[in-house]
Amino acid sequence: MLINGQCGDSIAVLDRGLQYGDGLFETIAFIHGNAPLWDRHMARLSAGCMALALPQQDALRLAHEARQLLQSDDALFGRHVVKIIITRGEHGSAYFPREGEATRILYRRDWPQRAQRGIDLLRCQTRLATGSPFAGLKTLNRLEQVIAAAEIKKAGFQEGLLCDADGFMVEALMSNLFWLKQGVLYTPLLDRCGVSGVMRAEVIGQAEHFGMRVRKVRKTPEVLMSAQAMFLSNALGLTAVREFSGRRMDVDAVPLKIRNAIQQLLS
Amino acid sequence: MLINGQCGDSIAVLDRGLQYGDGLFETIAFIHGNAPLWDRHMARLSAGCMALALPQQDALRLAHEARQLLQSDDALFGRHVVKIIITRGEHGSAYFPREGEATRILYRRDWPQRAQRGIDLLRCQTRLATGSPFAGLKTLNRLEQVIAAAEIKKAGFQEGLLCDADGFMVEALMSNLFWLKQGVLYTPLLDRCGVSGVMRAEVIGQAEHFGMRVRKVRKTPEVLMSAQAMFLSNALGLTAVREFSGRRMDVDAVPLKIRNAIQQLLS
Repeated sequence: MLINGQCGDSIAVLDRGLQYGDGLFETIAFIHGNAPLWDRHMARLSAGCMALALPQQDALRLAHEARQLLQSDDALFGRHVVKIIITRGEHGSAYFPREGEATRILYRRDWPQRAQRGIDLLRCQTRLATGSPFAGLKTLNRLEQVIAAAEIKKAGFQEGLLCDADGFMVEALMSNLFWLKQGVLYTPLLDRCGVSGVMRAEVIGQAEHFGMRVRKVRKTPEVLMSAQAMFLSNALGLTAVREFSGRRMDVDAVPLKIRNAIQQLLS
Repeated sequence: MLINGQCGDSIAVLDRGLQYGDGLFETIAFIHGNAPLWDRHMARLSAGCMALALPQQDALRLAHEARQLLQSDDALFGRHVVKIIITRGEHGSAYFPREGEATRILYRRDWPQRAQRGIDLLRCQTRLATGSPFAGLKTLNRLEQVIAAAEIKKAGFQEGLLCDADGFMVEALMSNLFWLKQGVLYTPLLDRCGVSGVMRAEVIGQAEHFGMRVRKVRKTPEVLMSAQAMFLSNALGLTAVREFSGRRMDVDAVPLKIRNAIQQLLS
């Protein structure tokens, strides 16, 4: 683990990352030492730093430190995950932030086990608060996700669909959501809450590249009842939805061109 | 600083308090070694542990450790603040929480400087997301407050009024809000976001004890234009509002009986 470039595994209790969740994170796929979505991660991190008035991070330094981590863990080959956490450090007085160097944390995690042939998706009762000033960003304020995760685990699922307080679909716990209907690819709007995933942006880009129509919409889960296919995207790839709300979905109906493009990207 | 009963000042990077803001806190006034609102703090902490499925905390052990802190800092007399942070520790895998002992952090802070004769209140542009599953609780997810604090500081104020995403009043940055109109005491409803302050509960209790009518309402800030008085409450006391949105308020119109009762409580 690297903290501000030095080996370490702890931070000060007074760090605002702990005190207020005053920071951001990125979870980045590394394939044989390279991060195919690196630029998208850095763009979101930069947007987050702007929104939180955190100092902009040097992407080259982050890349260098990530590589250093992988090397020291003998992890330059195969698939690995690097998590980057940026906090405001101890710069501030109570809620009031002050300018100063951020705390920069990087560490490696193992690539998680993933369902190969589709996943069952719970319809969560937990709702996401709406109208967040941080809609789209990946901040350290993730308690809604923790509570949703507990609900998903208790129900015996691995993933769940989260709606906002008004009942509109937002995302899944650890992924963004797409569905396909009469040749059009849909995904929820993320202007009031949710995380704007790097892979979501990649999927939208690929779909448009292949001439598909893509629409970002504010809809309740009822529209999924007539969807031809559903899939989830996150930094580590795509997963087809096999069952949702008692309805069996066709896991092979996920557009092949997109599947192949993402698979190629991550190989 | 005490961490799980031991001296220390740092926590593991993998602690979920940092990773997700997966925890709670309390900021407690100690007057000559006693905490007049201790039971209210413990009740809110207990409700928070229930909502987050965190292990219930032993209030006697917390009281013992707080006293131990004050003693070692030679702070058994005068006014002091003790902050308690409870996190889920490292118990979990990604967002999914697991059962296990919480991380328990206590430390002392100096009693902050407070305006004696009323404070000017900014009307913040920053909005609180609404429909939070944690409405009323004091969780470690406080990034909205950090951003609001930056706005307040930039505008040259010390406190600001926060509305939710729908434009309804919720609270001030570090306090709850009360206003007085034709003999009735009003305070915003906190069922969709905001922190249910221990002093807010105390003020409501005192007001009702003195036969005042108290109403919890969902209102936009426009109703404050015809208020006779406004004041803020937090664990450290009451503060009258001197000016809001260009309107000068009567700082002496805050109900004397309530002011005296709270002053007595904190002396």
